[in-house]
Amino acid sequence: MSLYSKRGVSAQKEEVHKATEKLDQGLFPNAFCKIYPDYLGGDANWVNLMHADGAGTKSILAYLYWKETGDLSVWKGIAQDAIVMNIDDLLCVGIHDNLLFSSTIDRNKRLIPGEVLEAVISGTQEFFDQMKGYGVHIHYLGGETADVGDVVRSMAVNGTMTARWPKNRLVTNDKIQPGDVIVGFASSGQTHYENSYNSGIGSNGLTSARHDALSKFYAEKYPESYDTGLDNEVVYIGQHRMTDLAEVPGFGKIPMGKLVLSATRTYAPLLKVILDEYFEEVHGLVHASGGGQTKCLKYLPGPMTLVKDNLLATPVVFNILQQASKSDWREMYQVFNMGQRLELFCAPASADKMIAVAKSLGMEAQIIGRVEAGDKKKLILTAQDGTIVEY
Amino acid sequence: MSLYSKRGVSAQKEEVHKATEKLDQGLFPNAFCKIYPDYLGGDANWVNLMHADGAGTKSILAYLYWKETGDLSVWKGIAQDAIVMNIDDLLCVGIHDNLLFSSTIDRNKRLIPGEVLEAVISGTQEFFDQMKGYGVHIHYLGGETADVGDVVRSMAVNGTMTARWPKNRLVTNDKIQPGDVIVGFASSGQTHYENSYNSGIGSNGLTSARHDALSKFYAEKYPESYDTGLDNEVVYIGQHRMTDLAEVPGFGKIPMGKLVLSATRTYAPLLKVILDEYFEEVHGLVHASGGGQTKCLKYLPGPMTLVKDNLLATPVVFNILQQASKSDWREMYQVFNMGQRLELFCAPASADKMIAVAKSLGMEAQIIGRVEAGDKKKLILTAQDGTIVEY
Repeated sequence: MSLYSKRGVSAQKEEVHKATEKLDQGLFPNAFCKIYPDYLGGDANWVNLMHADGAGTKSILAYLYWKETGDLSVWKGIAQDAIVMNIDDLLCVGIHDNLLFSSTIDRNKRLIPGEVLEAVISGTQEFFDQMKGYGVHIHYLGGETADVGDVVRSMAVNGTMTARWPKNRLVTNDKIQPGDVIVGFASSGQTHYENSYNSGIGSNGLTSARHDALSKFYAEKYPESYDTGLDNEVVYIGQHRMTDLAEVPGFGKIPMGKLVLSATRTYAPLLKVILDEYFEEVHGLVHASGGGQTKCLKYLPGPMTLVKDNLLATPVVFNILQQASKSDWREMYQVFNMGQRLELFCAPASADKMIAVAKSLGMEAQIIGRVEAGDKKKLILTAQDGTIVEY
Repeated sequence: MSLYSKRGVSAQKEEVHKATEKLDQGLFPNAFCKIYPDYLGGDANWVNLMHADGAGTKSILAYLYWKETGDLSVWKGIAQDAIVMNIDDLLCVGIHDNLLFSSTIDRNKRLIPGEVLEAVISGTQEFFDQMKGYGVHIHYLGGETADVGDVVRSMAVNGTMTARWPKNRLVTNDKIQPGDVIVGFASSGQTHYENSYNSGIGSNGLTSARHDALSKFYAEKYPESYDTGLDNEVVYIGQHRMTDLAEVPGFGKIPMGKLVLSATRTYAPLLKVILDEYFEEVHGLVHASGGGQTKCLKYLPGPMTLVKDNLLATPVVFNILQQASKSDWREMYQVFNMGQRLELFCAPASADKMIAVAKSLGMEAQIIGRVEAGDKKKLILTAQDGTIVEY
């Protein structure tokens, strides 16, 4: 049994897929999100989507950092994580404007005071205000905050989005084909719409990352920060404290806590431009969230081989996490985005335009791979050190 | 400090209201839900709503019952609770058809296997299939199930609904006025659309109910079923086991577990008929969820006195809970619905029609009170034993 399984997580979520397989799978089986008829408007040329996701166990990292430092601002990042895990999925079917959002927050009132709720809720509105400046309009339609300390150890921050969208402006991934290139967009660095360095961590793999990287100190001091029914040997087995400093080339020394808590970058300002200007040239979009660099395999329209042999340089945080966990490359690329959280499939001639949009926003991007003919859905990935891994 | 506070719950949710007071409060301040412009359709005559809610700590009762008996079917009830806590709120602004639903389920994978997820998810679809037979169409657009055992002790089952609705078919509560009567609709009994006796418990007040009624046995055997940071003196301080039998007049002996786990009755089939046939006669609607019989005070359009002096007979489950908790009447009516979870405000001449619709569905209903002129928002309630309580 892997450390991952012993901690009760699964990047592949087999049980969840089995539990939902009988439900209506929507109109476009290869699209990144499930897409349904326009129940709300009754127009055959439009579709409806709802999408739910959240900050997952990243809220525990915020809890620990806030308890250690008193810094409430980390909770704004959790608000952003919960939003971006929704909107960046929706971006991958082409939706980039006029969204509705509702929060679902479950807290343990004994540990999470009102000021934390306020930081999350006002942080949500502030993020929407910022996105408006990039032409991405998200309407905050309220939500529910429940005091359920017998269910939730600390806090669960989730959100749900609703969209109504014209059918002829959807990205369904059906155009992905041999001959395409894969453009990867950086998850780390600092774009023009970010106030500080983003480690690229995103909101996935953080149960493992937290236990692998942080020291037993946190188990002893904050028993509310983990499942006390887990084997002690998988709980906080690392060496780090949240305040340990890590050297990030070009950005100086940054505390570990800030690295693992970097708010998930949204690609909304990028895709707003790309989908408005180059929609016809976009063959497919994949958000490398749970499943990391292997996520793309689930959205291919047929058997083909993906070759990713030119990934962006691995951001520091993932090297630190790999040293802590001693995970092999196969697992690292399966759990984390490893430096690019969005990939776009297009003809080779289109790639430069996509990359130019990224550069104009201060975001790194490059051709990270290509699509080749093949008799099954396969991914051949060249890891940071040159190791070749097949999925 | 009350038992209620010591357990980290609050029927009034003051902190939550403070955290959200700066957000857009919507178009109709007295309406039961926040109502927004038609962002999705751009039509001035329509509105949009999103609504989030869930089964709260009722999922813990299901967990205990399932562990004790092996009966998976209780999880279908939790699915229904999460849905009804959404749709019955939306019914109170007049919305009763063409809804979208998305699930948000957080589980501890170590304790909650795939078969429980399947029971919740298939139970969700089955409830929608049943409602379709009453002309209430709810479309299940997927959702998120996250394995987050470090955040969630057992399982949190939440849901979010989206509606687009014509503005001239909204109930905004602005027509509530002195001279109106209040029709109460029973939360217990067995309607034609229920397969068994409903205790009327709903999905509110269940943190208190669980700890007050159930014995310390559950703390010892299932430490995952409560916040281990609570004072031991407020944890499972009752006498009951889930399998203890209670006598319910007309329905025989029913296990305590089944009484507290009765799936929240929906009033959708009732309000579908009332709103289709008597819309103009409905002055206001209130779902007596969190806040119980005092919830109505939040939705009055101005100062007036509500007199509730003819409430429906208190269902057995609330008497058992009161005996267990030794709560006074003031608190009981503030936490629980006490037998009627929906109230409708209308002119006296309209009441009989509303009551007749309920009877046609096998649901009890009667005039439980009236609206009088007054200089502030006040409620005078006659409790089961004749005690008069003012709020």
